[in-house]
Amino acid sequence: MGNVFKGMKPSRRSFLKGAAAGGGVLASASVAMAAGDSAITQIKPWNQELGDGVDVSPYGVPSEFEKHVRRQNVEWLTADPVSSINFTPLHALEGIITPNGLCFERHHSGVAEIDPAEHRLMINGLVEKPLVFTMDDLKRFPRENHVYFLECAANTGMEWRGAQLNGCQFTHGMIHNVMYTGVPLRLILAEAGIKTAGKWLLVEGADAAGMTRSIPMEKALDDCLVAFSMNGEALRPEQGYPLRLVVPGWEGNTWIKWLRRIEVGDQPWHHREETSKYTDLLPNGQARYFTWEMDAKSVITNPSPQAPITHGKGPTVLTGLAWSGRGTIPRVDVTIDGGVNWHKARMDGPSLSKSMHRFYYEFDWDGSPLLLQSRAHDSTGYVQPTKDQLRALRGENSIYHNNGIQTWAINAEGVAENVEIS
Amino acid sequence: MGNVFKGMKPSRRSFLKGAAAGGGVLASASVAMAAGDSAITQIKPWNQELGDGVDVSPYGVPSEFEKHVRRQNVEWLTADPVSSINFTPLHALEGIITPNGLCFERHHSGVAEIDPAEHRLMINGLVEKPLVFTMDDLKRFPRENHVYFLECAANTGMEWRGAQLNGCQFTHGMIHNVMYTGVPLRLILAEAGIKTAGKWLLVEGADAAGMTRSIPMEKALDDCLVAFSMNGEALRPEQGYPLRLVVPGWEGNTWIKWLRRIEVGDQPWHHREETSKYTDLLPNGQARYFTWEMDAKSVITNPSPQAPITHGKGPTVLTGLAWSGRGTIPRVDVTIDGGVNWHKARMDGPSLSKSMHRFYYEFDWDGSPLLLQSRAHDSTGYVQPTKDQLRALRGENSIYHNNGIQTWAINAEGVAENVEIS
Repeated sequence: MGNVFKGMKPSRRSFLKGAAAGGGVLASASVAMAAGDSAITQIKPWNQELGDGVDVSPYGVPSEFEKHVRRQNVEWLTADPVSSINFTPLHALEGIITPNGLCFERHHSGVAEIDPAEHRLMINGLVEKPLVFTMDDLKRFPRENHVYFLECAANTGMEWRGAQLNGCQFTHGMIHNVMYTGVPLRLILAEAGIKTAGKWLLVEGADAAGMTRSIPMEKALDDCLVAFSMNGEALRPEQGYPLRLVVPGWEGNTWIKWLRRIEVGDQPWHHREETSKYTDLLPNGQARYFTWEMDAKSVITNPSPQAPITHGKGPTVLTGLAWSGRGTIPRVDVTIDGGVNWHKARMDGPSLSKSMHRFYYEFDWDGSPLLLQSRAHDSTGYVQPTKDQLRALRGENSIYHNNGIQTWAINAEGVAENVEIS
Repeated sequence: MGNVFKGMKPSRRSFLKGAAAGGGVLASASVAMAAGDSAITQIKPWNQELGDGVDVSPYGVPSEFEKHVRRQNVEWLTADPVSSINFTPLHALEGIITPNGLCFERHHSGVAEIDPAEHRLMINGLVEKPLVFTMDDLKRFPRENHVYFLECAANTGMEWRGAQLNGCQFTHGMIHNVMYTGVPLRLILAEAGIKTAGKWLLVEGADAAGMTRSIPMEKALDDCLVAFSMNGEALRPEQGYPLRLVVPGWEGNTWIKWLRRIEVGDQPWHHREETSKYTDLLPNGQARYFTWEMDAKSVITNPSPQAPITHGKGPTVLTGLAWSGRGTIPRVDVTIDGGVNWHKARMDGPSLSKSMHRFYYEFDWDGSPLLLQSRAHDSTGYVQPTKDQLRALRGENSIYHNNGIQTWAINAEGVAENVEIS
């Protein structure tokens, strides 16, 4: 089962052979036109009728034919949708930018709908001068632009006890990757003046949950942003409009949405979301906590259970995403035979720190069953572990921080299933 | 009028001074709370009431408070909206990614609404084997991801005869910048096999206009993509769904939307859109044509006529965009006094070839009138010219390819106006 796409030049022979075997999805023009392929010879309405003009959509939306590309929740997952989650349709996306409308949502009290003119950010606690900022005030500070992934600590959490959910949207879709614009948090802290004893921040949201997390000063002064834009436009309401804390590489619940207050203190607060939640119970009865950084991880997005192979044998594009909370992803390995042979994937698109990376592996499918896996290497040298390696370290009580290697089984019909192999 | 933001550390003194002079937009917490600032002491509905849950928006939309951020047309510009244009709201955007819903539109016969299952791409003419591809066929080729700007050749065209339109959305908004995913055109051409005499392509759209352009083989084999995605999701209908040609760095009308046919020939076709349109009449009566590459250009997006200074004196963020059809933008110069003094802008975010670049210049406004200009330098050493320099070369009959330096005048109230200075 060789890779026919050496040097990005597909062999026409194998391409056509594969297509023919797959039921004629690829046909030469002469064949298609001799057969009177209606798709070629018919005049379509869009060839002869004027479409809508440019007045109709001051803010555009996707084609009607793309309605299936949507965020989806899992109804049994939580008791109430205002404290629930939905998932990014990773299997239907390309590249590394997640469109704002498809970024997964996680709320503790639903979506706060905030009037930006009424919103304030307060800095208090161990500071020289407590301050309150309007949104306009914040836009007078120097700002920066960075592409970062945001991953929920619970992403892939349901897979700790074996294969559960049939689709990368559900196993890995609590992640998105956008370009943020915001003010470096260190500039806002400098404006207030941190007292010598100030070593930690409590960051607090303006939603009814009043969501809080403790952030160490070192991270706050490093690369955190107080962000007001994502992918060029204002934050979406469900992503914290008008203001969210961006904590690059760290678990999503630290990225406080609807950010209204930053208190400077001398120690962590040990609030609910960093003790009873977002910690992992180890076999010895102790909890791992302050597990902030997201470990290197990857997933094959196509083929996958929601995106089976429908074209039959022959040239096949395998693609996926990889990311690390500690830097870039210089390398991803891919296997299609359950680990007997590993191949270096082709990395594509910009390689940005703490951002998603896109990888590809093009191969000539012979129609036999496959076991697909990917394994990310990050710029620190860390290599993505197997799920069994994680269980050996942490036992089986964990919910969070499952970055184990994912397996999809493909049968001879091209249907994909979530499986676990050891 | 010094830059107080040296090394990204604002001086609190100047920050507060400026704010106070501007009417107290920045207030310390103690002042605000002593004065009983209702924005701080009132409990807001969003602090105490549950918001909507995650079932409500399988595809999210912007906040109700962002309705003003929209594509806009200029009604008098064309006779009919199905052959018209609207403009990207550059003054309201951040970073370098244009959200898909706000990418400007230009149609010759309105928006073709195409069923992707019915769409075909034909390759014919001087090829070894004419081919017809379905969308599924195309997704079996290796694909690539790149961020590119697309600029209409007519962008800024109305400014040839002096300042006309009051806002960068209208003077410079026929541009957007997204991440494309697509198949390199050279792979599709290799599949069909180019005959030795094949030196040009005719690319044709499936809309009722049957829009066509001639593309030289050298460009086709270099970096063109047959793209199906933008910013991660399927192309939007108004951007050519399900298939568009991406011609990096070249004028927008060559990026054929709803791409249905590629004919290989031995010379250019000289069709309507490359002779009577999209050419510039020189003073000697000859037309410049095949003016494909977009020259280096920049514009200050804030402050600008649609985004005046509302905060009064003190710390002020100036920002803008720069791009070149020939490479990257290593440097942008900015002046706030009509060219008496020029300052190197701070370049921010990823620097990608044939993509927008974001620049900033932070300064301490003393409240006196300003004349703002920016000047881009690209990676070939080319420097953005003045409008007078362009007129000296090309006369005054041109419509297309105006990349001259733009000027905004700011008065003592912070109001901005489109002006021309020599």
